[in-house]
Amino acid sequence: MSAAKILVAQGGGPTAVINQSLIGVVLEARRFPAVERIYGARHGVRGIVNEDFVDLTQETSHNLEMVAATPGSALGSTRDKPDLKYCHQIFEVLRAHEIGHFFYVGGNDSSDTVRIVSEEAARAGYPLRCIHIPKTIDNDLVCNDHTPGFPSAARFVAQAFAGANLDNAALPGVYVAVVMGRHAGFLTAASALGKKFLDDGPHLIYLPERDFSIDKFLADVKAANDRHGRCMVAVSEGIHDASGQPMLAKLAKDLEHDAHGNVQLSGSGALADLLCEEIKAKLGLKRVRGDTFGYLQRSFIGCVSDVDAREAREVGEKAVQFAMWGDCDGSVTIKRTGFYSADYELMPLTDVAGKTRVMEDEFISSGGTDVTDAFRMYLRPLLGSGMPDAYRLRPAPVAKVLNP
Amino acid sequence: MSAAKILVAQGGGPTAVINQSLIGVVLEARRFPAVERIYGARHGVRGIVNEDFVDLTQETSHNLEMVAATPGSALGSTRDKPDLKYCHQIFEVLRAHEIGHFFYVGGNDSSDTVRIVSEEAARAGYPLRCIHIPKTIDNDLVCNDHTPGFPSAARFVAQAFAGANLDNAALPGVYVAVVMGRHAGFLTAASALGKKFLDDGPHLIYLPERDFSIDKFLADVKAANDRHGRCMVAVSEGIHDASGQPMLAKLAKDLEHDAHGNVQLSGSGALADLLCEEIKAKLGLKRVRGDTFGYLQRSFIGCVSDVDAREAREVGEKAVQFAMWGDCDGSVTIKRTGFYSADYELMPLTDVAGKTRVMEDEFISSGGTDVTDAFRMYLRPLLGSGMPDAYRLRPAPVAKVLNP
Repeated sequence: MSAAKILVAQGGGPTAVINQSLIGVVLEARRFPAVERIYGARHGVRGIVNEDFVDLTQETSHNLEMVAATPGSALGSTRDKPDLKYCHQIFEVLRAHEIGHFFYVGGNDSSDTVRIVSEEAARAGYPLRCIHIPKTIDNDLVCNDHTPGFPSAARFVAQAFAGANLDNAALPGVYVAVVMGRHAGFLTAASALGKKFLDDGPHLIYLPERDFSIDKFLADVKAANDRHGRCMVAVSEGIHDASGQPMLAKLAKDLEHDAHGNVQLSGSGALADLLCEEIKAKLGLKRVRGDTFGYLQRSFIGCVSDVDAREAREVGEKAVQFAMWGDCDGSVTIKRTGFYSADYELMPLTDVAGKTRVMEDEFISSGGTDVTDAFRMYLRPLLGSGMPDAYRLRPAPVAKVLNP
Repeated sequence: MSAAKILVAQGGGPTAVINQSLIGVVLEARRFPAVERIYGARHGVRGIVNEDFVDLTQETSHNLEMVAATPGSALGSTRDKPDLKYCHQIFEVLRAHEIGHFFYVGGNDSSDTVRIVSEEAARAGYPLRCIHIPKTIDNDLVCNDHTPGFPSAARFVAQAFAGANLDNAALPGVYVAVVMGRHAGFLTAASALGKKFLDDGPHLIYLPERDFSIDKFLADVKAANDRHGRCMVAVSEGIHDASGQPMLAKLAKDLEHDAHGNVQLSGSGALADLLCEEIKAKLGLKRVRGDTFGYLQRSFIGCVSDVDAREAREVGEKAVQFAMWGDCDGSVTIKRTGFYSADYELMPLTDVAGKTRVMEDEFISSGGTDVTDAFRMYLRPLLGSGMPDAYRLRPAPVAKVLNP
């Protein structure tokens, strides 16, 4: 066996820049004369156990660059969460194909898969370098300042709120938008970066890091609406009550109880719709609108942070360098080294695998419904260059004639 | 009374480029020495009857240019649909403020308001030029090749589907997205412009111009899913059965009937969720996801067609030129004069006001679930320059070793 073959795969939810990491691996690996073949597994770990490989050595560098700039997972992805037996199968396929280096781009679950495969190889005495390359729009990997994919998704959320704020200012009402992020509120918090003027929305932000109370929510909405004549709310899909029960389940259950019926609520617009119903019913407000950003926030084409694209490329490139020049497995992590600059470090897989980062307390306002300036300073440089900006007419009122 | 004062206002739903039309009016009017004051009414016709005016003469041209590039209605908007009495009030305020020219940027309802005000002024012998400036993301104004605002919203829908298609290809399943457009399907049809490769989604498009049958829908989805291993569907919010009943009301009623309960479904994610429930229940498919593009499709900041921005500016500018050089009221319309070029014509208000355009038959495939090449040729140049593009890895399969 030689280290002449490398394998790369992509796992979990696609992002706007995950292909940058894939192509970073491929193009960097091509620079090493010892690398004879670069394989890609179709649809993540499932493609590995099925031996569903494509030979990326047979691609033009030009097409690879075009794929790098394309969102989504070019190799396909999977939601499979391998157990020990599954990981053993992965290892057997890697051995059968004489793979010397395994690179897996993904989030928490993917890093844990890499850890187990690495341990299997070590136990079997098979020389295999296993490197995890970070990716997740949730920004919930530990040991990382942030994770590739998050900045572009955050940019989408910020731009979406900046636009929705202008729309809501023109036709005032209550606007509730549900943002992805089951345990970590980073992406929902990014909505605050769409604000420019003091009275811009979102006026309220609800994160899974804080317990949610429907009574407090309604009081907050009423107060904001009284103050601004309108109210924009950003809500994480993962909001839950003090007992940890998700609000979607709780509100749906209440509805069931009210109706003594069998309401199905697994559709993705449900949480926003239920919160809007509560506002209409309990506060008596008329123009209440709910949006669920859904897949657009992670899949929209044409909303990429250039900082994110560059870093996603670099974590792929560094992964190969760590594997080729170093002699240990690990997870590539991003460290912040300036305002703004970043560097990369290979951390032990056990430090990263299977752990979940949530928003630090210093990023959340004491009231729990806003972010702090520390968070704004943290996120702003990641959104990249060319962020759209909103301008207003300055007031110059005209005296009334008929009813002065 | 002199023609020294002009008034401009914005009505209906905001768009990405409606401020271009507003600023087109203001900057062009400034070029005429006879124009002493340029007023803007806050929140459309409601601002007129309330004499809620701002003096736009007192704005820097630089800030006006920045506002032009900002989405939303900078003056604020309204959903008020004036009746005859309301229009009479508008006229009385215009007379009291000695307004000589009235410009109203809006859709069907707004053009009808302009028509009535114009007739009131004529009856009273008051010299007033009334010009309607077109705007609507629905593209449903007659006499126009297309309407400002539609191209940018169409671009958003096309980009959203292009991205969602990449996401869905990576993690296959059924994806249903609901797009705005109650009577006209143009915006939903724009989803087809996100396709590049033959097997890209959307694989099915449902327009309000064709009757919707849930049985045929389910059969279509099954066939597409069998063929592609996944299925992407674009659905207009206005789909209805053969009797004209909206599908949202029909499906919600069915659910109520099943559950003997009191299901509330006025939230905006309901139609997508209900269609997904049908697919899961009747076809037994597992990964079924629904998105509702909601306000993002008309308010997202940072997704503008440069063609749309230019034309929106020009209809504002032309409105002033028609008013100053011509001697009749009317509605500014867009005519296509090349592939691609456009010119503007002032049409009688009665030709445009209160009429609704729907998609022409030549734009809809014979099967009713796709668009024609004629539609693609129609829409493509309107989307503007710099449309994002998607690239794929080319297949180069690797021989299996363990299970050849």
